Amino acid sequence: MNSFGRLLRVSIFGESHGECVGITIDGCPAGLSLSPEDLLADLERRKGGKQKGTTPRQEEDYPIFKSGVFNGKTTGFPITILFENKNTRSEDYNKQRSIPRPGHADWTAHQKFGGNEDYRGGGHFSARLTTGIVAAGAIAKKLMHGISIHAGVTEIGGEKDLEKGLQKAIDAKDSVGGVVECKVTGMPVGIGEPYFDSVESVLSHILFAIPAVRGVEFGTGFAAAKMFGSEHNDAIENMQGKTVSNHAGGVVGGISNGNDLVFRLAIKPTSSTPKEQYSLNWDTEQMENFSIKGRHDLCVALRAPVIVEAVTALVLADFMLLEQRIPRVLPVSGIMNKE
Amino acid sequence: MNSFGRLLRVSIFGESHGECVGITIDGCPAGLSLSPEDLLADLERRKGGKQKGTTPRQEEDYPIFKSGVFNGKTTGFPITILFENKNTRSEDYNKQRSIPRPGHADWTAHQKFGGNEDYRGGGHFSARLTTGIVAAGAIAKKLMHGISIHAGVTEIGGEKDLEKGLQKAIDAKDSVGGVVECKVTGMPVGIGEPYFDSVESVLSHILFAIPAVRGVEFGTGFAAAKMFGSEHNDAIENMQGKTVSNHAGGVVGGISNGNDLVFRLAIKPTSSTPKEQYSLNWDTEQMENFSIKGRHDLCVALRAPVIVEAVTALVLADFMLLEQRIPRVLPVSGIMNKE
Amino acid sequence: MNSFGRLLRVSIFGESHGECVGITIDGCPAGLSLSPEDLLADLERRKGGKQKGTTPRQEEDYPIFKSGVFNGKTTGFPITILFENKNTRSEDYNKQRSIPRPGHADWTAHQKFGGNEDYRGGGHFSARLTTGIVAAGAIAKKLMHGISIHAGVTEIGGEKDLEKGLQKAIDAKDSVGGVVECKVTGMPVGIGEPYFDSVESVLSHILFAIPAVRGVEFGTGFAAAKMFGSEHNDAIENMQGKTVSNHAGGVVGGISNGNDLVFRLAIKPTSSTPKEQYSLNWDTEQMENFSIKGRHDLCVALRAPVIVEAVTALVLADFMLLEQRIPRVLPVSGIMNKE
Amino acid sequence: MNSFGRLLRVSIFGESHGECVGITIDGCPAGLSLSPEDLLADLERRKGGKQKGTTPRQEEDYPIFKSGVFNGKTTGFPITILFENKNTRSEDYNKQRSIPRPGHADWTAHQKFGGNEDYRGGGHFSARLTTGIVAAGAIAKKLMHGISIHAGVTEIGGEKDLEKGLQKAIDAKDSVGGVVECKVTGMPVGIGEPYFDSVESVLSHILFAIPAVRGVEFGTGFAAAKMFGSEHNDAIENMQGKTVSNHAGGVVGGISNGNDLVFRLAIKPTSSTPKEQYSLNWDTEQMENFSIKGRHDLCVALRAPVIVEAVTALVLADFMLLEQRIPRVLPVSGIMNKE
Repeated sequence: MNSFGRLLRVSIFGESHGECVGITIDGCPAGLSLSPEDLLADLERRKGGKQKGTTPRQEEDYPIFKSGVFNGKTTGFPITILFENKNTRSEDYNKQRSIPRPGHADWTAHQKFGGNEDYRGGGHFSARLTTGIVAAGAIAKKLMHGISIHAGVTEIGGEKDLEKGLQKAIDAKDSVGGVVECKVTGMPVGIGEPYFDSVESVLSHILFAIPAVRGVEFGTGFAAAKMFGSEHNDAIENMQGKTVSNHAGGVVGGISNGNDLVFRLAIKPTSSTPKEQYSLNWDTEQMENFSIKGRHDLCVALRAPVIVEAVTALVLADFMLLEQRIPRVLPVSGIMNKE
Repeated sequence: MNSFGRLLRVSIFGESHGECVGITIDGCPAGLSLSPEDLLADLERRKGGKQKGTTPRQEEDYPIFKSGVFNGKTTGFPITILFENKNTRSEDYNKQRSIPRPGHADWTAHQKFGGNEDYRGGGHFSARLTTGIVAAGAIAKKLMHGISIHAGVTEIGGEKDLEKGLQKAIDAKDSVGGVVECKVTGMPVGIGEPYFDSVESVLSHILFAIPAVRGVEFGTGFAAAKMFGSEHNDAIENMQGKTVSNHAGGVVGGISNGNDLVFRLAIKPTSSTPKEQYSLNWDTEQMENFSIKGRHDLCVALRAPVIVEAVTALVLADFMLLEQRIPRVLPVSGIMNKE
Repeated sequence: MNSFGRLLRVSIFGESHGECVGITIDGCPAGLSLSPEDLLADLERRKGGKQKGTTPRQEEDYPIFKSGVFNGKTTGFPITILFENKNTRSEDYNKQRSIPRPGHADWTAHQKFGGNEDYRGGGHFSARLTTGIVAAGAIAKKLMHGISIHAGVTEIGGEKDLEKGLQKAIDAKDSVGGVVECKVTGMPVGIGEPYFDSVESVLSHILFAIPAVRGVEFGTGFAAAKMFGSEHNDAIENMQGKTVSNHAGGVVGGISNGNDLVFRLAIKPTSSTPKEQYSLNWDTEQMENFSIKGRHDLCVALRAPVIVEAVTALVLADFMLLEQRIPRVLPVSGIMNKE
Repeated sequence: MNSFGRLLRVSIFGESHGECVGITIDGCPAGLSLSPEDLLADLERRKGGKQKGTTPRQEEDYPIFKSGVFNGKTTGFPITILFENKNTRSEDYNKQRSIPRPGHADWTAHQKFGGNEDYRGGGHFSARLTTGIVAAGAIAKKLMHGISIHAGVTEIGGEKDLEKGLQKAIDAKDSVGGVVECKVTGMPVGIGEPYFDSVESVLSHILFAIPAVRGVEFGTGFAAAKMFGSEHNDAIENMQGKTVSNHAGGVVGGISNGNDLVFRLAIKPTSSTPKEQYSLNWDTEQMENFSIKGRHDLCVALRAPVIVEAVTALVLADFMLLEQRIPRVLPVSGIMNKE
């Protein structure tokens, strides 16, 4: 239930304030050059504390490889990567325990897991679990040549000028939502299936696994609902399948058509707003005022792009393995010759 | 690849102009009263030809049970249901074969399957495949007590007055898109998991499997990206988890909180617009003008609600089996007594 | 639960005395020439009524293709095949209903499915369900070039002279067990994984799905438990991996080594023996004497070889798709040239 | 590919001479009391170095919990357990590298993974990977009440007197095979499905994942192939399904009948025999004499029983979750009362 993927499969584990968070990547082809350093650039992008509007919690986030890499290359066996939790301040959470935080999983987790859940810092629900996903995504990116994935925030608090949107939140002493757009160039033709394994189905599945995502749209998306067919249809202009427009966002009938894959995500405002709130207290069984303590992002959308890129890379690499466009063993000059 | 679900699993097969379309439902609990008549109301809603704006193609769509039902009850084994294709006019499609229709899977299917695909009427890509899904959904609905799923079109061509939106399309001699909203009342608490098996992940996976869906949003959805946290957070008002507002759409941390599950879908305009189009001809390798023949819906969104309900029912029943809220054998007074 | 396979996946459905039995094969590469006639030779081998010791029930067993084949070739989409049940004599079974037949699933099915199971002729438990499996296996065989799978009965009732073993049963008016051996020549190197996806794991999984199988052994099998390591180890004699002996049966560390894949199955005697038996009557709640009516094989092992070949072919083809040794679209001269 | 299970799912990782071996257990119900100490008794049984005939390599094998346990109880989220590798002597293996060891995966792994595999001590193929499986099995045992699983060696080198069998190997300076029998008492009725998810299918799948297993048989097993039906059938003697004999080994039609589940495994002799061998040298491309260095078991069957119990426990707990006989959250007096 904490796993995703068919031929390239990731499994996440860990809790925000436990010993570590981590991930196992199974099905990665053998022979890929891989070191912790390959992952640092993306991990750095995911980290808080650097940008205005992100949490001051600073974890080193150095990936500790426990398996699957030998002599600087992947072996073809599961790659397990740990990230130690060093910078935890759990006492902040104990104090808030009697009031399940609105927008957080405190109440639903407690109901579902009967009070056994590790509630500190959101436990397994914490966005800290995405650290492993970003690491896996960086590996997946290395498996694909000529395919470029780029995600970015296009809107904060309804403003396309992102500084302005963020300042609005700072001024209001409130958290704020945003929109992330992802574009993949160099897409191969023929990735995906009709119906249940469509590109949109598989991608949206993992996109909605990212905390705070509330909407996903491909190509023109919700705006397509307001269009005529003659406007929305993308005329094909050549034998390579290039289309004059790209309202489809690169996917027709669930299958990539070689044009850019384009999609957007709605990210809700951080649930941990600095504003005072009024909600249920489990002990008194009454609603009451309270304030969230702890270190949090004003706008989680700012940290989302690298996570979006990561899950996109995982999905595309998995599809390419299914399509036999990535081999099970990467060829290296010299190595295959001996036997 | 044409299957979906974990404990309640559906597998679709068939082609629009082949002998039949069909579905196999595996994992349905034993002991559910079931007859073809139980499915007719939903199948009727899916059919074209009754509403303004839907295709005049009329199939009888009578479900032929081939297995899994005995003495009027499910046996616990796979239920296979066929729908014969009687009313096909394949010659329409042969004529259009040299021009891959924009918005349709003609071009991507041909690239991916090397010309082996059954192209008549879209073949396996046809929305006719959703007939089986609607049948399966009707069965899933019968498995759940006290849960009510209702989907409807809320917007056509950007108009909330649906008549007006449709008339716009008729006047423009063009097809048009729409928005479908689904609301589930009577939701149990605790359905879903964080991350990859979140309610949003699993639901969006199958929602994007429905042809023409271009966007999915939960609760406030894309509008959440413009909100402050203090606005978006749903304050909990009592020990049953009822919230003052429902911006979350009933899911927090991937888990249902007992409030109404609410989501919306963007449906693109029917690709087969009556308007003349300009696109590639495979034979001449040039773009040229052409018109789509055949019988098509002006607004496919009109037929989507019952399909949306069906996939929602399938997902919820599957989750409820995982949560052990639906038994593997339905209890019937008297039956279990004998031995 | 009635499905098996990863990239080539079969799903069975139907009941012995219902309308039909059938199978859906998903993931079969596009472009494979396929007609019902391709399946008849194997289906004929599975049928009873021809050999001494097999049931006189005669079904036509003609495969009715409902989907997935177009213009004589597979499309890449699910292939559904039905076999009608014409020659049923259900009344035989109604009479026996009060005594759950020893060795059959009558008692366990009734307990598990609460009396909802179709009990006629074993219902879904009937070996008639293997008809679809044999059809799927015949398709899988067509996907592999240079690989030859041959299974045969090597022992009946403890006798290597099969006539003699069968005569023993006829003389004793009893059913009898047997041993089936399967050998695959032309095996590629590198099929399978260590641990859970070892060749032995995946093969044994589906071999034990064949009714009446009670044991599976690879290579030297149980005799290996009596050997010294120096006897059992297969010395490698050349750079192609040929071994001097083949005690391993062609699999080392879960992975094929290119030598013949060899395994054996123990098949229990047909549960429906003509002999009088003494067992529980559900109505009286007492044990009593009774005799099995109906048409049955004296030795089901005789019909097993083609089923064993079929499941072996399915497993190998699935592994070869995983290893990218079978393409997703079969190349056909001319077809891929156009675009 | 390194995962197994449906609702209770284990994923293994690590290499014999890497940093660690480990396992992640996903789907374990919340609320189970769990500490490292609960696993020590079974881990001790798996270890070498204590019994005559087992390897002198001594690892501490202390389970390090990295996630999924909080306040002494399982949280319902993935439990990751590491075992550090401390006592490795990899130089032994470097010396032997030019001769792929007969019976080991050296040759097949090299072919399949293109030389990228970690060959030290067998790498991921090493039976050291079973450490995690034994830990997971010990957890699974705690989930089941009233079910008792016991496996033991019943034969070494063809001798039922185990001392004598082992002495034969010591005298011959050779390794030797054995037979392990497992019996489960207190079995519930109704576990398993016909065909692909039969108890035998699922169990044999994971039993053949245990290194060195060459055969699996249920109940009377291969001896059944020599029997008459009237001998083999187990007459039912009462309404609880108790049978007079138990040739079926507790499974009929793939479904447990409540009688003891009984099966046996053939374990091949340790491939690393102390005897001199004659096999291919990769460098010279000729066969030559060599001897295996390193620390190895004379009879790996001696360490197999606790592994067999572990995988049996995993399979049964998984089936019981499917049958809703183990809840998703374990009830604890007091805990569920608050809300």
